[in-house]
Parts: sequence; structure tokens; C-alpha cells
Amino acid sequence: MREIVCELHAELVRNNLVAWTAGNVSGRVPGEDLFVIKPSGVSYDELTPAAMVVCDLDGNLVEGEHAPSSDTAAHAYVYRHMPEVGGVVHTHSTYASAWASRNEAIPCVLTAMADEFGGEIPIGPFALIGDDSIGQGIVRTLKDHRSPAVLMRNHGVFTIGKDPRAAVKAAVMCEDVARTVHIARQLGDPLPIPQADIDRLYDRYQNVYGQRSPR
Amino acid sequence: MREIVCELHAELVRNNLVAWTAGNVSGRVPGEDLFVIKPSGVSYDELTPAAMVVCDLDGNLVEGEHAPSSDTAAHAYVYRHMPEVGGVVHTHSTYASAWASRNEAIPCVLTAMADEFGGEIPIGPFALIGDDSIGQGIVRTLKDHRSPAVLMRNHGVFTIGKDPRAAVKAAVMCEDVARTVHIARQLGDPLPIPQADIDRLYDRYQNVYGQRSPR
Amino acid sequence: MREIVCELHAELVRNNLVAWTAGNVSGRVPGEDLFVIKPSGVSYDELTPAAMVVCDLDGNLVEGEHAPSSDTAAHAYVYRHMPEVGGVVHTHSTYASAWASRNEAIPCVLTAMADEFGGEIPIGPFALIGDDSIGQGIVRTLKDHRSPAVLMRNHGVFTIGKDPRAAVKAAVMCEDVARTVHIARQLGDPLPIPQADIDRLYDRYQNVYGQRSPR
Amino acid sequence: MREIVCELHAELVRNNLVAWTAGNVSGRVPGEDLFVIKPSGVSYDELTPAAMVVCDLDGNLVEGEHAPSSDTAAHAYVYRHMPEVGGVVHTHSTYASAWASRNEAIPCVLTAMADEFGGEIPIGPFALIGDDSIGQGIVRTLKDHRSPAVLMRNHGVFTIGKDPRAAVKAAVMCEDVARTVHIARQLGDPLPIPQADIDRLYDRYQNVYGQRSPR
Repeated sequence: MREIVCELHAELVRNNLVAWTAGNVSGRVPGEDLFVIKPSGVSYDELTPAAMVVCDLDGNLVEGEHAPSSDTAAHAYVYRHMPEVGGVVHTHSTYASAWASRNEAIPCVLTAMADEFGGEIPIGPFALIGDDSIGQGIVRTLKDHRSPAVLMRNHGVFTIGKDPRAAVKAAVMCEDVARTVHIARQLGDPLPIPQADIDRLYDRYQNVYGQRSPR
Repeated sequence: MREIVCELHAELVRNNLVAWTAGNVSGRVPGEDLFVIKPSGVSYDELTPAAMVVCDLDGNLVEGEHAPSSDTAAHAYVYRHMPEVGGVVHTHSTYASAWASRNEAIPCVLTAMADEFGGEIPIGPFALIGDDSIGQGIVRTLKDHRSPAVLMRNHGVFTIGKDPRAAVKAAVMCEDVARTVHIARQLGDPLPIPQADIDRLYDRYQNVYGQRSPR
Repeated sequence: MREIVCELHAELVRNNLVAWTAGNVSGRVPGEDLFVIKPSGVSYDELTPAAMVVCDLDGNLVEGEHAPSSDTAAHAYVYRHMPEVGGVVHTHSTYASAWASRNEAIPCVLTAMADEFGGEIPIGPFALIGDDSIGQGIVRTLKDHRSPAVLMRNHGVFTIGKDPRAAVKAAVMCEDVARTVHIARQLGDPLPIPQADIDRLYDRYQNVYGQRSPR
Repeated sequence: MREIVCELHAELVRNNLVAWTAGNVSGRVPGEDLFVIKPSGVSYDELTPAAMVVCDLDGNLVEGEHAPSSDTAAHAYVYRHMPEVGGVVHTHSTYASAWASRNEAIPCVLTAMADEFGGEIPIGPFALIGDDSIGQGIVRTLKDHRSPAVLMRNHGVFTIGKDPRAAVKAAVMCEDVARTVHIARQLGDPLPIPQADIDRLYDRYQNVYGQRSPR
């Protein structure tokens, strides 16, 4: 799991989701009340499997030489309250954060968005770092939506998945559709997709297309 | 043909036309009623010539260990109904998909667009995946235009060519002009190019410039 | 000169100025009425010094196995009429082409633009490929401006320099300022720089900063 | 210090903050009235630790074979007047320069901006190169703000840090938030973050998050 989580950080870089050290991936250790997460403030170039840290579901450091990511409490809250989740990703990716700073959900106007998100990508509340506020905001918002991604107001994106790779995929797709819908809106109004068609697309993608996040 | 199609997927990545696994290239096997296409949901890094799959013109798997791309039915329909086509590409490239989500054709306001597309890049209908609807929409729209690219409403782009490389070129050029014309329109109205000049540019490029798609 | 011109094409790619094969660099052979230019329709990956072609100042092929770039007549016209020019570059770079398609010059609102271009980047006429029209449009427009770059209407950019490297630098800087000024204008009006300050910046950069294009 | 400063220029390139040679990093030599800076007009590919030049705090060349960056006077002025600063970076990064050309500060509407900048990123005056005007503009503006970055009108960005790496981080984050807030503003008004929350975020990030710039 250390290796998987370490390698997935390279996907954040490759997909231009992060500047400097501002993004992190975690993965639940299968069968245990533990998860692996990025150490705080370490650059992506210097990440190694050994540098990754292990925390319990209250966010306490269990194993590792570095302090865990400053977003650890939010990841831990998600793992505690969503047992079906095996991976969590946090980024400040550009277009998604722009929607978040305006407090606007991203409307579902692309078939790829219906496939992956099953509807709009919702907005979560403004919450300060330091206690359970961010985690609560994530869980409450995602409980009401099919989307594995939530835009936290004035902040950035959190995504979930059945495993860390699925959560990274959701983060990549979230920024991709955030950008495309933004660009579409710059010159007019994208056409909505009827809800029944969104339902059909989502259902097919989740059940026919193969490996997918748990939601 | 497996090798060619496999390598061309790297061009989709290099030209930033795809996020995660959302794009595919296929190529007709010369002299046979078969085509080679990407397997479903496999990441571009893991593609090898051996992993590519072979289908007949009804989209049935003929050879290969993986399931074919979920867009196989659309590719097959094009090969069945457009015998001059030797390659098909599908992407959700950002700017082209933005035009598609607004249901707007891209007007021909650049000489490079007159060269490659011979006029506007047209819009095809909204169509759900799962039967021949997408393939029908592609073929009906392209029959009425010189353009080797069609923007499928709320979805993305399909391009054709005399071979897979020509179809990839059309996909690259389609996103390039979709972006440039979008940016031009953000600050005003691009000047149109008179139809007679579009005709002259298209004719020269198709006949003088060398290797080109069949349309 | 073949080697220099060949290597400079990699700069076009690295600076994202070109899609597919749509851009070319040429360089005058010092002391001779000849210039080296890219062959037509060859991809940048396959370019080698040996593949570059040599033409006389009327654009006739003198040495080389491939046909010269389809823009050769325009390059030749510039070399015939501007003896101080040692390098010419042509691209369809995105932001510059967007200004060109609206027939708008780029106003001088950045000190870096005053340094390199000495004022606005001007617009040249609409001209079809195939005779001297493009070359004439370039030369007439540049004669009236300090700028080593001209935006050809509905087409793209031509830049000149004392050698091919200076022309490539002008092409890179042209796209860079075209993008920055575009983005500035999206949210309001950039402040103009007074002409006297533009003159001072240009004079200093041309005379103090070191190696530069002849204009 | 030569090695550190040399390597940090690669971060400017990797983070797309610079076109051609238009950006530079300097670092104060610990315990001495000297700083290391980029030589003028040398491309980033050709930079080596040995090519870096050393200047005194009046900007005079003390050691090195090349002329120092044409921005050396501005760097020197900052080191003379801000003893806590150990690194300075200058770029013309795109989005930050666009705000600068409109003479607009970047409002604090992202938690990541509160963390790193503690409020808005302010605008400094228009100033010509050649004397102490730019340095004075930087120092006067930064003295009144928490931000380690200042947007110099119609010009570009200067950032400071306790060491050169912190100044580079500020330059990367400055462009990142300049881009995100620009994109947010294109489609409406981002929500402000209350000043008390900005203060809490800034205080936490500066004191809990670990290594940081001196301001």
C-alpha cells in the first residue's frame, strides 16, 4: 500500500493537479483500521515508499519518520464514516478550485461526466483546517450525491474511491470536466443532458465498463 | 497494424487530447473486413501491440485477450458505411468538447482550418452509447461536410482518415483550431474567410501538400 | 546552418508553438544567396540535419531530397527584400493566431513587450498561399514597425531575426505576450505604457542587453 | 549557494514560469554581504553552478565570467533593505503579469492563498529598469503586506523568502493562485474569505506547517 500510494502521487503531478506540495493521496490498509498517507511538506520528487506514513482512523501517526500531511484529519474522518471507501485524494486543481471559490456546483453537461459522476459535482461548505469540520463537510455532501468528488468552498477538491487509484482517477476526471465545462460556459450555455439519460449513462458505466469506485 | 495503432495512442497523450483512458484509435486491416482497436479501460502506459484487439465490422471480438473499447460499435459502424475510411479516432479533447456541449459548429476563420477541414467543423446529434446511434450520427454528419472531424453533442470528437495516422492528425488539428477559435471569440468576432478562398486553400492543401485523409 | 535550423525546430515544439507539422524555421547561409528550410510535411521527430533542404532566394530547391516547406516562397521573399535578416520563423501559435483572426494588433502593455518588440505587434493583410502575396504582406508591415513579428490576418505569425535563433526567440516571445495580454484583457483593460517609456525600454534592451535581432 | 541557485532555475522552467531567458533567482551568501545570481541572457539549459555570478549588495560583480542579470540592481536593493530576506525571484509568469498589467491586486479568495500570502497579493508601482526604482517599489510595497510576492505594474512578479527555495515556492504559488482566481472571476465573483479566517489560516500555516519564508 505504501508503494501504491507513493506512485499515485506521480499521477497528480503528471496530470497537472498540483503545484509545489499542495496535494495528497491516501489508501486504507485492507483489513486494518489504518491508512497510508503522504508526509507533510515533502516535495513529490523526494517521495519514496519508505517516506510514506501510516495513521490510525483517528489520524494519529502509527508508523513513519515524518509528520503526516496537514490534511490527515480530513482523510481519517472519511475513512471512519465511509467504510466502503478505500482511497482519498485532495488537490487544489485549478479549474475545480475556481468553481469552488464561486461556490458553484459543476452542472452535468458532458456524457463523460454522467459516466463518472452520475450528475453534478457538488459544493461542500467552507471549513477551516484544524478539526473535523472539513471531514464532516466532505461526508455530508457526498452522502447526498453519486459523485465521488466534492468541491470544498474557497478551498479545493476531495475525491474518494474503492481504492486509491479510483480516487486519483476521480480527481483527474474532476479537473478535466471542471475545465471543459468552464470553457464551454465562457461563450454561452452548454445544453443540459436529460436526467433519464444521465441515469442510463451512469448505470451502464458503473456496471458494464469494469473496475470502478464504490459509489 | 497492431503496432501502428498502439503507437498512435501515444500521440493522443503527447498532444494532450485525453485524460486517463478516455480516447481511442482504430485502424482497418488492409484488404480484410477487420479493424484493430484499443482494449477497454487499459491505461495508455500499459498498451502494447499484443494488447490491442481485433474486431470484425460488426464490432465482434475476433482476436485478443481484452474486451474491446466501449466505443467499438461506433468505430465499426463507420468502417461498414464509409469504405474509404482506414482509421477512426475518438477523444473528449477539451476545447472541441466545449463547442460540442454548446451544440455549436466551429466556424472556419483560420487558413489552417480551411486547409485541413475545408470549412466548419460540424456538430452531430446527441446519442447514447450502446447501439448504432453514435455511428449513425457520425456518418450522416460527415457525409454532408468536407471535414474529417465531427463534434458529437455533449460528448466529444470523432475523426476519420485514409489511415489511422491521418485520423490522429485530424484529431490533433481539430483540438488546435477549436482552442484558437475559442480564444479568438473570447475578445470579439474573428473575421470570416470568404468561401471562395476556403475552397482554394482546401483544394491546394488536398492536392499539392501531399499525404492526406481520403475526404 | 543545417544543424542549427534543425535543432531550432525542437524549440518550436518545446515552447508549444506548433501542432503536428504546422511551423517552420529557416536560416540564411552566411555570404551566399541561399537559405536552409524545413522540408514539407515531415514530423518534427523525424527531422535531421541531412533532411533539411537548401533553396535559392527565389525559393527554388538547390539541395535536398525532400520538397521544401510550402511556406518557402514567403521566406524567400523576406530574404530577397530584407538583406539584414538572417532567420525567419512561421507558426500558427494559439494566442497570436487568435489576435490575427480578429485582425487586431497586440497593444504594448508589458515592459517585456517594449524590450523585444518596441511597441505593438502589428497585423499584416490576408493573403493566400501560392505566390508572393504573403511575403509582400510581411515585408510591407515590418518595414513600418520595430517589431520583429507580424500577425498575418486569419493565418498566423511570421518573425525575423539577425539569425534563425533570434527569429525563434521572437516567435516564443510573441506567443508569450499574445497570451499574457489576452488574459489581461479578459477581465478589464490593461494600462498603456507611455510611448517615451517604451522608447527608453526598447533602446536599452537593444543596446545594453546583448545579442539581438537586427531590428 | 551557486549550486542551489542554479538548480532552482530548473524549477522556474518546470513550473512554466518563464519564456526564453526572462526570469531569475538569487540567493544571499550566508554570513556575507554577497549574493549569487543568474548571468544575463544565458538560456536555462546552459546554466551551470560555475556560470552563476556573485555580486555585492550594491550589485557590483565580484566573481564570475558573465555579466550579471539585468535585474541585479533590484535584487541588490532588496537584500540591502530587507536583512531577513535570503532569496529573491523575478518572473514574468503569465497570469500574475496579466493582473499586473491591469494594476489589480489579487484578492484572497482561496485558503491556499491565505496560507502562503496571508491576504491579497499587492501591486507595486510602474518603474523603469536602470536605477533603484524597481527595488524601491518592491520594498515599499512588501513592507505593508504579509505577502512574499509583489506584482510590479505592467511588468511582472518579484518574490522573497528566507532562502532562495522559499522565494521560488512563493513564485510558483503566486502564479498558481493568479491563474485560479483569474479563472474563477471569468464566470462570476468568487466569495471573499472573512479576514479573521484569513488570519487564522495564515497563522497556522506559518507556525505549524513547518519550513517557510521569513515574512
